[in-house]
Amino acid sequence: MTHYDVIVLGGGPGGYIAAERLGHAKKNVLLIEADSLGGTCLNVGCIPTKALLNAAKTYEHALHGTQLGVNAGEVSVDWTQMQKWKAQTVAALVGGVGAAEKKAGVTVVKGYGTFEGPGRVSVDGATHTADHVILATGSVPVMPPIPGAQDNPQVIDSTGMLAIESIPARLAVIGGGVIGLEFASLFAMLGSEVTVIEMLPEIAPFMDAEIAGQLRKGLDGVTFNLNCKVTGIDGGTVAFTTADGAQQSVEADVVLMAVGRRPAVQGWGAEASGLEFSGKGVVVDDRMRTNLPGVWAVGDVTGRSLLAHAAYRMGEIAVANILDADAHRKGEVMRWNTIPWAVYTNPEAAGIGYSEEAARAAGHNAKSVTVPGYMSGRFVAENGLKAPGAAKLVYDADTLQVLGLTVLGSYASEMIWGASVVLESELNVTDLRQVVFPHPTVSELIREAAWAVNA
Amino acid sequence: MTHYDVIVLGGGPGGYIAAERLGHAKKNVLLIEADSLGGTCLNVGCIPTKALLNAAKTYEHALHGTQLGVNAGEVSVDWTQMQKWKAQTVAALVGGVGAAEKKAGVTVVKGYGTFEGPGRVSVDGATHTADHVILATGSVPVMPPIPGAQDNPQVIDSTGMLAIESIPARLAVIGGGVIGLEFASLFAMLGSEVTVIEMLPEIAPFMDAEIAGQLRKGLDGVTFNLNCKVTGIDGGTVAFTTADGAQQSVEADVVLMAVGRRPAVQGWGAEASGLEFSGKGVVVDDRMRTNLPGVWAVGDVTGRSLLAHAAYRMGEIAVANILDADAHRKGEVMRWNTIPWAVYTNPEAAGIGYSEEAARAAGHNAKSVTVPGYMSGRFVAENGLKAPGAAKLVYDADTLQVLGLTVLGSYASEMIWGASVVLESELNVTDLRQVVFPHPTVSELIREAAWAVNA
Repeated sequence: MTHYDVIVLGGGPGGYIAAERLGHAKKNVLLIEADSLGGTCLNVGCIPTKALLNAAKTYEHALHGTQLGVNAGEVSVDWTQMQKWKAQTVAALVGGVGAAEKKAGVTVVKGYGTFEGPGRVSVDGATHTADHVILATGSVPVMPPIPGAQDNPQVIDSTGMLAIESIPARLAVIGGGVIGLEFASLFAMLGSEVTVIEMLPEIAPFMDAEIAGQLRKGLDGVTFNLNCKVTGIDGGTVAFTTADGAQQSVEADVVLMAVGRRPAVQGWGAEASGLEFSGKGVVVDDRMRTNLPGVWAVGDVTGRSLLAHAAYRMGEIAVANILDADAHRKGEVMRWNTIPWAVYTNPEAAGIGYSEEAARAAGHNAKSVTVPGYMSGRFVAENGLKAPGAAKLVYDADTLQVLGLTVLGSYASEMIWGASVVLESELNVTDLRQVVFPHPTVSELIREAAWAVNA
Repeated sequence: MTHYDVIVLGGGPGGYIAAERLGHAKKNVLLIEADSLGGTCLNVGCIPTKALLNAAKTYEHALHGTQLGVNAGEVSVDWTQMQKWKAQTVAALVGGVGAAEKKAGVTVVKGYGTFEGPGRVSVDGATHTADHVILATGSVPVMPPIPGAQDNPQVIDSTGMLAIESIPARLAVIGGGVIGLEFASLFAMLGSEVTVIEMLPEIAPFMDAEIAGQLRKGLDGVTFNLNCKVTGIDGGTVAFTTADGAQQSVEADVVLMAVGRRPAVQGWGAEASGLEFSGKGVVVDDRMRTNLPGVWAVGDVTGRSLLAHAAYRMGEIAVANILDADAHRKGEVMRWNTIPWAVYTNPEAAGIGYSEEAARAAGHNAKSVTVPGYMSGRFVAENGLKAPGAAKLVYDADTLQVLGLTVLGSYASEMIWGASVVLESELNVTDLRQVVFPHPTVSELIREAAWAVNA
């Protein structure tokens, strides 16, 4: 038994970044992971989906290059090779996380850890002690109690979908959130007939509704059933009730259950320890402190965000406050409203901050402008005039402060970090107008939006 | 003869944005353009090259999709169709500029304008007067006095290269700046055997030398001759002297002269008007004022920057100071060091601010960190571990202020505007570390660089 400065329970993005930062700060750190380093994101989430989505976009571009002057003959998908590329990517990056922990001097133990209370974690029969414990146990897919969903080999979750042996001719996706949409777009590009069934009136409820609607219309080859509630699954047949109460069904070869993920709060001793939970997950403050002394929680297990980069930042916040009791006074607190999101569908969407509705609900005199994709010369040069694309800027009409930005179209995910800087720096529309964007870029849509504000 | 609030001479990016902004501010504006609206950038510069480069990247991706699981059969280029797509793009965007001017209430005259002095511009025999004149006459390609270059049908400039009737089997490019590099990358992707001859020790002298070297090595299919001075051209044979004084030559079907562009300061009356010139162009201050009262100059003609987005900003600065004599006190002055640049080669590069050397020369205790592309999960998922990619951060070691950023790799051009915000907001490395980037993105390389600083 060794005494550590910090024990980190869980090697996903929140846990591994915390361990790495602590190691570089010369702390003696134990990182415990039951499975592969990298967690959901790297092993069965963000990374493998992006490897596949990029391959699918390459296929899509090869298929439709004729108008650009690129003729590609007979274009086909080699799913086995696509899976191999994905597996290579994941293996390389998992290795990279291991190497980074080693370089930081972190002790990594593979095993299923149990939290035994403040300063105590056991793994493989040994109990380790520490001044601090960071809980980063992640999340698991939700399998809702829909009749016929359990023990149905045709119903799989996102992890199963990533490992599927062939491209299904017909795919039904239950849930129109990020996970459902990315898989819908992926398999639609690869030729599947895709149907999405979503309970709410619009897909991607975290997204500005106007842009969500444009994204939905832009997802070629995907049929959407909104306001629909799945009532049962029989083999590959998904029965659902429509908004007006009618009963419908869709036939599929594979049914992807993508209704969400929930914090992994069971099985690792949390219940017995007196840790405070809400319905969402482990309760934390803006420094990532739990109710127990020296016990911190970061990432999906907090239920505050299921995004890997939010987990990174939570890990960093916990580390900053472990290393320096005054860190929170120096700005090292979670600012939930400056966390961007990205959806890697074709077309992509990304955003940050308030939607117009949310800004009004928060008391702002919120207004917005939306500019179309064809306002960008590069967008037109690469996609033509009619491809889905937009930038929407939400601002406070009294102060002109920028409150939110959403972008739909190519490169959206790569340009949105600039909007994080805009929100972190609390720029207003006038400030944003003075920022010089390189020409020609799709990112200039954000500048066009700032200039379209009537101020 | 009509009296205007403002006459704008030249309808390129600097001129057309100035006219548009003035029109929206209810000013009575005359915009004079001898050729197509949009200037060099839209007609024979940034836009047509980006249309072709995107098409060439599509071809490149289709050719090399096998490892990703995309098999594309016989892939071929239809140059005529590629040119058609380019022409459609340009036509659509030129139309868009015209529509924007019309919407802003700007009077557009097609003709060759002559500046007759403060407040006076003639076109087609009529003299118009105005309170202010904005000179935006642009630039022209430099054709250096190399023996055999003039009146040689095999030697063409960038405008000629864009209109070339077929893809040359062998292309020699004289000049390794942005224009030369983009054409070199374009035709290398399309199968030409490309040789670049550059006088300086490294390509892209405006770029951080370390990243420029990586870009050079990453440009597949392009042979570089650095430190080489062209001594003569005979048909398609380019003779040059190497650094050690040896005489060499390269045989090509087409020779692209891409040694630069110079301000268009002749033929429109500038000489007679008493306008002050330097060797670079029309002399302006940081409000874009010339030495003559009520006469402003923006864009390439100032010789301060040949970038379209710099011209936009110069146009906006002139407009802000025309509309409000106090605008400069409100921050409406050119900040030359916060103008980003982008090179749309394959791979792309983009940057902003100081290189390490330039920062030292400016008196900073400058240090830098460089992180490789494989530090980004998305980069690896899309390109593998070995593709060229990097982010370099230059900072002041005393204050930790961010002084410069350069990115090499996919999406570089679309992510760099965020660095404009970082520099405009004068963030330091600690601030940048707190910015949340979406995961997984290539833009995260910038965050990795901030965390790699030993501070």
